Amino acid sequence: MAIGVHGQAVHHPELQATATVNYKKVSVSYHKLYQFGHADAFVNGLYRGILPLSELKDHGDFGLGAPDLVNGELTLNNGKVYQSTADGKTTLAPDSLKTSFAMVTFFKPDLTFSIFRVKNLKDLYQQLDHYLENKNGMFAIRIKGLFDVVKTRAFPSVDKDSHVPLAQMLDKQKLFNTSKSKGLLIGYSLPAYLSGINISGFHFHFISDNMDAGGHVLEMSSAEKIIVEISELKGFLLEVPDDESFKKFPFKGSNKEDLQKVEKGY
Amino acid sequence: MAIGVHGQAVHHPELQATATVNYKKVSVSYHKLYQFGHADAFVNGLYRGILPLSELKDHGDFGLGAPDLVNGELTLNNGKVYQSTADGKTTLAPDSLKTSFAMVTFFKPDLTFSIFRVKNLKDLYQQLDHYLENKNGMFAIRIKGLFDVVKTRAFPSVDKDSHVPLAQMLDKQKLFNTSKSKGLLIGYSLPAYLSGINISGFHFHFISDNMDAGGHVLEMSSAEKIIVEISELKGFLLEVPDDESFKKFPFKGSNKEDLQKVEKGY
Repeated sequence: MAIGVHGQAVHHPELQATATVNYKKVSVSYHKLYQFGHADAFVNGLYRGILPLSELKDHGDFGLGAPDLVNGELTLNNGKVYQSTADGKTTLAPDSLKTSFAMVTFFKPDLTFSIFRVKNLKDLYQQLDHYLENKNGMFAIRIKGLFDVVKTRAFPSVDKDSHVPLAQMLDKQKLFNTSKSKGLLIGYSLPAYLSGINISGFHFHFISDNMDAGGHVLEMSSAEKIIVEISELKGFLLEVPDDESFKKFPFKGSNKEDLQKVEKGY
Repeated sequence: MAIGVHGQAVHHPELQATATVNYKKVSVSYHKLYQFGHADAFVNGLYRGILPLSELKDHGDFGLGAPDLVNGELTLNNGKVYQSTADGKTTLAPDSLKTSFAMVTFFKPDLTFSIFRVKNLKDLYQQLDHYLENKNGMFAIRIKGLFDVVKTRAFPSVDKDSHVPLAQMLDKQKLFNTSKSKGLLIGYSLPAYLSGINISGFHFHFISDNMDAGGHVLEMSSAEKIIVEISELKGFLLEVPDDESFKKFPFKGSNKEDLQKVEKGY
């Protein structure tokens, strides 16, 4: 993969991705969130992986995702994709692995600062909130620290024909408590208007420095020596699976009465 | 995805070799919907134009939009932007005009067919539905025809400090009945999952061939000699205003209980 121009000089770089038969050339666009799949559809049973990680990486080097048939959690950092599975292991995921739902960006922090100590996840979120001035903003956030205990989870693989909603399978999630671990929280804070398509608010995965632990973060106890990097994202590119299960998925139309009135004129 | 060159350079390809500050070069990406702004925010008072049409055109040559402070309706076709105002006039909008909310694409139809006759808007929509197999698809649609009567509307300009929701200003919309008119319906069919961010279902503006009429389509009587062009869009790029009124807009978070349960793990 050749990396092309980037930065402020490129006004709409997502339009510049080109491909030829002989080699792939990808222009890198920072400060943009790329999402494949749809949160509502994912948590309600569209677990089959569609997009290979090799292609996901064209859209970002940082982020979160779900492996084919759930089978744990994906965390991207510095262009590497880590898969944390229900057996407690974290490994590098192969490029051929497909994701059903993922959100990535080429991470370039606008703001870096340290926090001496946080008490727990809620405390961390409250401290982060002071820095996220745009209440409707999209933020990619990387947090390095020494964590006393991080509680993570990973779902086991689901059967390929299963479409039981994740919220009805919470008893199947495996929980892990990682103690005294140096590592990274990788994730996002997303605005309320993306709820449904994605998840609003904070959403982090953990990956330990020595790759012995990881997964979706549910809670943490105190952490210290914290370095926070934040990148505000200015564009959101959504691509959804081009397959029958998505095309037929019964999305519930929100009851947007005001929009309908304006549209119809009465 | 087809890649090309948009703007002046497309007619003078030799200029690409000597690109200078005088020429803007933009790669064209078909089958993608670009949206600026947010429907919920727009209909609830964020009427101030932010994005100049000159920049909107970098993202598409076809589509719909709202002019600065409402002031009618915008319709894009073949790279031209038409503004239909409450005084019943339709004119070419200047590149300097700013839009608060717009959705555009570089239009390249996948499917073209004719319909002998439709009875009204509902009948048209039902006939179109037969062709839109992907029930969660995004479609750009252009319909040429001879229309018996097209009923359109255009809102007058709002005061720059007004944030009265559009649904509370429906008595201010001006209605027009255009008879025996050749023209185009320009618009989209969008999926339920974009309701809120945009408007789900069909949404058309009208523009007469001789530019004497246009606006947001509310109803129509019979039409004939209909040619329909449809382009299925595979990606959705959202950009929102980088200004204080958007950052502080009180979006109501949808009650996505299942997403929250999965996120929190209980």
